[in-house]
Amino acid sequence: MRTFNITRPDDSIRPALIEKIDNLTKPKGSLGKLEDLALRVGLIQQTLEPKLTKPHNILFAADHGITEEGVSVSPREVTWQQLSHFSHGGAGINFLCEQHGFKLVLVDAGVDYDIPQGRGIIDKKVRRGTRNFLREAAMTHEELDLCIARGAEVVDEVYRTGCNVVSFGEMGSGNTSPSSMWMHIFTGIPLDRCIGAGAGLDHSGVNHKLDVLTRSLEAYRGDGSAEDMMAWFGGYELAMATGAMLRAAELGMVILVDGFIMTSCIAAAAHFYPAVLDYAVFGHQGDESGHKLMLQALGADPLLHLNLRLGEGSGAVCAYPILLSAINMINRMDSFADVAVTKYF
Amino acid sequence: MRTFNITRPDDSIRPALIEKIDNLTKPKGSLGKLEDLALRVGLIQQTLEPKLTKPHNILFAADHGITEEGVSVSPREVTWQQLSHFSHGGAGINFLCEQHGFKLVLVDAGVDYDIPQGRGIIDKKVRRGTRNFLREAAMTHEELDLCIARGAEVVDEVYRTGCNVVSFGEMGSGNTSPSSMWMHIFTGIPLDRCIGAGAGLDHSGVNHKLDVLTRSLEAYRGDGSAEDMMAWFGGYELAMATGAMLRAAELGMVILVDGFIMTSCIAAAAHFYPAVLDYAVFGHQGDESGHKLMLQALGADPLLHLNLRLGEGSGAVCAYPILLSAINMINRMDSFADVAVTKYF
Repeated sequence: MRTFNITRPDDSIRPALIEKIDNLTKPKGSLGKLEDLALRVGLIQQTLEPKLTKPHNILFAADHGITEEGVSVSPREVTWQQLSHFSHGGAGINFLCEQHGFKLVLVDAGVDYDIPQGRGIIDKKVRRGTRNFLREAAMTHEELDLCIARGAEVVDEVYRTGCNVVSFGEMGSGNTSPSSMWMHIFTGIPLDRCIGAGAGLDHSGVNHKLDVLTRSLEAYRGDGSAEDMMAWFGGYELAMATGAMLRAAELGMVILVDGFIMTSCIAAAAHFYPAVLDYAVFGHQGDESGHKLMLQALGADPLLHLNLRLGEGSGAVCAYPILLSAINMINRMDSFADVAVTKYF
Repeated sequence: MRTFNITRPDDSIRPALIEKIDNLTKPKGSLGKLEDLALRVGLIQQTLEPKLTKPHNILFAADHGITEEGVSVSPREVTWQQLSHFSHGGAGINFLCEQHGFKLVLVDAGVDYDIPQGRGIIDKKVRRGTRNFLREAAMTHEELDLCIARGAEVVDEVYRTGCNVVSFGEMGSGNTSPSSMWMHIFTGIPLDRCIGAGAGLDHSGVNHKLDVLTRSLEAYRGDGSAEDMMAWFGGYELAMATGAMLRAAELGMVILVDGFIMTSCIAAAAHFYPAVLDYAVFGHQGDESGHKLMLQALGADPLLHLNLRLGEGSGAVCAYPILLSAINMINRMDSFADVAVTKYF
């Protein structure tokens, strides 16, 4: 796996940021999480005047060999159909990106379909879907390395356009299964608490999924290293998003984290580079069982609780206006020194 | 009190709204609260294509006689200073209104200051602050009626500009005290659970506030009717906001409810006209102790939990993009009939 130079933001600017926020014309602390966010982005950008520029939502799509075992309610063809749909507009993530001024970047990480040219879908395909991790490693170590590198490349491209805030989304039938495995591997939370209904499994479907994933874990015959387990149980879009997050942190960008699947990616990223979490803003706590536990394990406090379970980056993009409010607060509010308001606290 | 003709939205359009939402290209229910909001606004507007037009945040300001008893950390002059500040820009509510395209309407409901002309502050002043409700009724019944009527007038004015979605905010040193009293009166929740720190009281300050409000309740010598207690313990900005909410519901507008104080106003409004709640979207659950209890008593599920305690309408305006996302969802997303995506649920 390529290495990244990710360091915690320099803390020396923190007192000046806190002083600036505390002297805005409001009771101290009364803008709650907006104040926390302004501090976080100020630290990331090392400035008292943080800015958000050219937000992008990068959506990685891929298929999964484990769907052979009937762990997903959505058929495999839906991955390509939805990716195609995103490229035409009219899907969930399209109206959200449009509303909040995000550019949507679509990446084929490993979709089981020959993606036509000219549709604006970036070709980073590693293979037409992973292998079935109940039987064998989902991906080779070389493929994992390729995913990490290609995810980083996509971030480099958007960074060059002037983007300093990026969210990540995914599309992939069956991809809550590798996410549950990663959650288990990288947080140590028991597997049965890492599994949920995905796009809409019923109770017996969830039990079957737990059975398949439990047997997959028992059948695992790799070297037991984090990297090996990441490859064995991974997904191409997950691994690519992980590389993308690591590169975004390395570049000092703000990372907006979406729901369950993207949280499993930043859990993986943080296993190797804990400082990546300093660059993360968690957008949404979703319905997927286990998401709350994983967020707690990461010390994350998500901004929204809207019962979304769409993926695509939707929860992260929905949270953007709140992040932007924090930036507007620190830049546009008067301080007590500016105006004739009695400071009474 | 003037009467309002507020009826529950006709439910006959509900099945068609649900069918439209369920056939958008996403797993059923996967847009969570956005789907609930789209349904709610569709019902209010009686259309499958709801729209939000010209959002306004109407901010009512007033002073309170009960501040003589030391129940507030903010001095009385702050009410006028902040109202003046809002009119110049640079306060919390200003950047939020600007970000989300809200017109900010400032209303003097009863500020203890001679408001200069030409500052764009609408003069609806009833009196320079209420009376001290530990000693006597905060307002007369005539003043209450005046507040209800004047609040309704302000809504009429914004409605005439084409506005169909309105949030309400307030500014008034000491106004969590009348709000706590209204919460107690209109929900029946014990007074000690209706009281919090306001803009920043410490533990002993909160105890003192509880003592003052408890003694006020004991000293009450009105006729015990809801209207009489509303007047006795009320505030001009609270009563005006209540009248404004009632008129907004009567006009079929969407009401965005802010934090603790505005929730106490809609609790009052709902006591007289329960159907007002069908027009309400609760923006934010704040820090103020008791707010969660009051929301539960109203069956309300607020959109945001950002630990805001600023007032001014800030929590309601912050929640607006989520409401707008719901509207964009129902209008802009393709249905399964439009595109080639397998419906698998």
